[in-house]
Amino acid sequence: MNYDPVNIKSKLALFDERWSPRVIAEMNDYQFKLAKAEGEFVWHDHPDTDEVFIVIEGELVIEFRDGSVTLNPGEMFVIPKGVEHKPFAKGLVHILLVEPKGVVNTGDAGGSLTAENDIWV
Amino acid sequence: MNYDPVNIKSKLALFDERWSPRVIAEMNDYQFKLAKAEGEFVWHDHPDTDEVFIVIEGELVIEFRDGSVTLNPGEMFVIPKGVEHKPFAKGLVHILLVEPKGVVNTGDAGGSLTAENDIWV
Repeated sequence: MNYDPVNIKSKLALFDERWSPRVIAEMNDYQFKLAKAEGEFVWHDHPDTDEVFIVIEGELVIEFRDGSVTLNPGEMFVIPKGVEHKPFAKGLVHILLVEPKGVVNTGDAGGSLTAENDIWV
Repeated sequence: MNYDPVNIKSKLALFDERWSPRVIAEMNDYQFKLAKAEGEFVWHDHPDTDEVFIVIEGELVIEFRDGSVTLNPGEMFVIPKGVEHKPFAKGLVHILLVEPKGVVNTGDAGGSLTAENDIWV
């Protein structure tokens, strides 16, 4: 068993790619992932699961078909399963994601922003 | 659907009880809970699930039978299922917990520190 804490800011310093989540911890069949994001993502949904966004630094807007939510540091939001959403960040934002292992960042939408899954940092 | 962010610090300002987790969000069958802790908790384990601690403010020591881990703000740790642990905080600490809905804070240990479950804030 590992007795070292997982330091979120230290982990964030280890990569710089945008829209490419890195796993930092596993709890049962769920993963905690860090992501750096900037600009516009694609519309997508996750048909089988909710998804949690927690903003660590910067500002994240999550657009929905009928509205949006703006998250600042220390704020979180649960995207219900099956609900289409499009993350957007005017500047660089650091995000902590929580979702089941195996969830792909673009859901069923695919495309060039689809990141490799299960990369640890 | 609710488009308000969940602000962790605002939620923490709404209660002051120690060792009494308050639910702030649900993702599938998991809950995100805030807790304020100070002093010594009881030895216990959760036989059916891992448990995540993320420290928001203050310092938390989690003792194990063969070691310990110290968590400062922005640090997290996953307690594997079935592993006995005893949280301890010299001063006041604010914690974000993630675990399946229904998990009791004292596990199978019981006792006076057992908190009512599923209280939202």
